[in-house]
Amino acid sequence: MLSRADIDLVVFDVLGTLVNEPGGIRDGIRELAPDGDIDGLAELWENHVARRQQRMLDGRDPYADSETVDREAAELVADKCGVTDAAAIGRLATVERRLEPWSDTVAGLELLARQFPIVGLSNASRATLTRLSAKAGLRWHFLLSAQDANSYKPAAEVYRLAVDLAGSAPQRVLKVAAHAWDLRAAQEVGLRTAYVPRPVGDPPRDSDAFDLHAASLADLAATLGDD
Amino acid sequence: MLSRADIDLVVFDVLGTLVNEPGGIRDGIRELAPDGDIDGLAELWENHVARRQQRMLDGRDPYADSETVDREAAELVADKCGVTDAAAIGRLATVERRLEPWSDTVAGLELLARQFPIVGLSNASRATLTRLSAKAGLRWHFLLSAQDANSYKPAAEVYRLAVDLAGSAPQRVLKVAAHAWDLRAAQEVGLRTAYVPRPVGDPPRDSDAFDLHAASLADLAATLGDD
Repeated sequence: MLSRADIDLVVFDVLGTLVNEPGGIRDGIRELAPDGDIDGLAELWENHVARRQQRMLDGRDPYADSETVDREAAELVADKCGVTDAAAIGRLATVERRLEPWSDTVAGLELLARQFPIVGLSNASRATLTRLSAKAGLRWHFLLSAQDANSYKPAAEVYRLAVDLAGSAPQRVLKVAAHAWDLRAAQEVGLRTAYVPRPVGDPPRDSDAFDLHAASLADLAATLGDD
Repeated sequence: MLSRADIDLVVFDVLGTLVNEPGGIRDGIRELAPDGDIDGLAELWENHVARRQQRMLDGRDPYADSETVDREAAELVADKCGVTDAAAIGRLATVERRLEPWSDTVAGLELLARQFPIVGLSNASRATLTRLSAKAGLRWHFLLSAQDANSYKPAAEVYRLAVDLAGSAPQRVLKVAAHAWDLRAAQEVGLRTAYVPRPVGDPPRDSDAFDLHAASLADLAATLGDD
């Protein structure tokens, strides 16, 4: 069983794991187009972001940060709804700065911060992470953006940013996420993994073997504290 | 008078302003050489760091991060004292990871974090900042290391990291420090400035004109909150 003494640093996924990203995107779209097909427009947004990140990971597109990609997605959504108000589109483009934390996030980070260096590692840009952290009340010992590697998760070099920061062996770094795909990629680089379920996460398959499954961040802190 | 509505982001110097750097270095040296000339050895350390940073800023030395320079300083001090114990020298080399916060630091950052995005901007390396923040209980919305610019304060490009992160005009970014030299350099780049006195700081001269002089971080939060 993994315990406190095995871990030098805890790295958190942010979007989806600590804040409600899909809910926030839907709220932003609803603000722009109250009578629109919110789920369909959110799918348009999410597909655009996924496709653009994949094209960058495949080397077909040059790197662009998350703010650039979010702006493109906001423009696509606005186009689809026939909205042309630049201020409204600009507000949707920055929706990730205003995502809401899950109910256990702020207290859970506080608990874990007493036990470990806590670091965020996110596909969001540095500027977005700063505003999002301030708005949602997430406070860190350090923050890494995939922008630091000019790439996106699940690329291995993004997880290596955390290993380099820790200055430890990868197996002494614990990655926490609500997305099995994110934990699998962290595992490939040698990190330890903790899955935390969220309503919008990507649950593990039978074939996954993560080090910990915690019901919440408080549960994770309690589990790691018992050593 | 500068007030809350004028500022998008607050940037803090860390070493000296939030944690007692000279005191921590002296404690580390005392641990290595209890009977040594602590002030003389601390001067040796501080002069080495200052000279190395200056040589890098002048382009005479290639960039090396703060951990590398601290290790050189620790070896110089050990040499001077005739200490050869590698573990003891290694512990002194990482002394900046264990600096103590000033008494108002943790609560003051907490107060300011409710009002603004709070960002650290330090000459310490990213790895040192992570460990130091965890040990001293400093928690951030983002952290910038001069290492991100392969340089050191007072080089202008280090302050520009904060302006880029804010995505605002420089005059909407407030720099907080106990060192007048640091505030002067921030001013050159257009940032607003707040001086907070510390026993080990660099006080303003009559010719300095900083935007705010606060007695403590709590005083700074109260002053900025009145708008």
